[in-house]
Amino acid sequence: MTASLEFWFEFASTYSYLAAARIDALARAAGVAVVWRPFLLGPIFKSQGWNDSPFNIYPAKGRYMWRDMERLCQRLGVPLRRPSQFPRNGLLAARVTLAGGDAEWVPRFVRSAYRANFGEDRDIADAAVVAALLRDAGASPDQVLAQAVTPTVKDRLRAQCERASELGLFGAPSFVTRGELFWGNDRLEDAIAWARGG
Amino acid sequence: MTASLEFWFEFASTYSYLAAARIDALARAAGVAVVWRPFLLGPIFKSQGWNDSPFNIYPAKGRYMWRDMERLCQRLGVPLRRPSQFPRNGLLAARVTLAGGDAEWVPRFVRSAYRANFGEDRDIADAAVVAALLRDAGASPDQVLAQAVTPTVKDRLRAQCERASELGLFGAPSFVTRGELFWGNDRLEDAIAWARGG
Repeated sequence: MTASLEFWFEFASTYSYLAAARIDALARAAGVAVVWRPFLLGPIFKSQGWNDSPFNIYPAKGRYMWRDMERLCQRLGVPLRRPSQFPRNGLLAARVTLAGGDAEWVPRFVRSAYRANFGEDRDIADAAVVAALLRDAGASPDQVLAQAVTPTVKDRLRAQCERASELGLFGAPSFVTRGELFWGNDRLEDAIAWARGG
Repeated sequence: MTASLEFWFEFASTYSYLAAARIDALARAAGVAVVWRPFLLGPIFKSQGWNDSPFNIYPAKGRYMWRDMERLCQRLGVPLRRPSQFPRNGLLAARVTLAGGDAEWVPRFVRSAYRANFGEDRDIADAAVVAALLRDAGASPDQVLAQAVTPTVKDRLRAQCERASELGLFGAPSFVTRGELFWGNDRLEDAIAWARGG
């Protein structure tokens, strides 16, 4: 049995960008399979009484986060260009990811959607942008975009968001493995170690 | 000129317990001087509309934090016994720390007050408990406790809390060095590296 790790991410989440950029190499080196689990933080935040990102609601927290991201992106060697809109709506990108299922292009699409949002200030809620990202990732844009808005995929995302609540998720990125929850890009290494048995 | 790091901590903060347990050895190894800066999160949380710890206000976040603390305390080899009251009032302990100034016993007192709160479920708002901790740390309890409630020390703590707001602090532990703010026990190593010049 292969060790595995569920990677729960929200396309609007800055720290998920870092985790998405790092997870494949770290997990592969550890022999851990990654299960990509897009979800939406909106419903969870709403249940906490928030109608916006906490980084907008609490300005000191927001100012710190953007500076922290600058430092971390520089170290990781990934681009950061503060999006002109934050948070961006990640609904379409999440549905596209789910429509992809286990397809080989999915991790490439996820990484490039994050880079488009946080490194290139492109609007990932725009179907034309997502189509271009899909093409670059090696998928068929028309086919995937059509599938992404079917009731089946919409229901799957809704179910996935309910599952996120049941698992106790309250932020992103989160990692779930062997009954344990780890929150934040800072816990990725710990989560991978736990997946392997502690 | 010695590199130095301001360590901003709140006695009610769980993750500050971890940072207080780790900072001396890490800073010493790096040749960085630690400036101990007790402050209160209450006024900052109040300005964000919170009348309680976010770990109590947001139950999923709270459940996660206590489990995360279990994992981290086990790894670090420090005791964890979930306090019967959370958050505990850290006002007296903060005043005592400020009354101590640069005295050699201060770091010992801070560490033992955190251990009393989070490892032994003792009430650090109780002057008798604080007196015992001071004695163990090598200070004169009666003298320090008398000094801790003088207007001078009370004012110093108030000024320190205002300074925390000015610096953009929104949680604890926080580290400030060379114009940069780092938040969270997870950033301690980065903050020490920054203190040394990056």
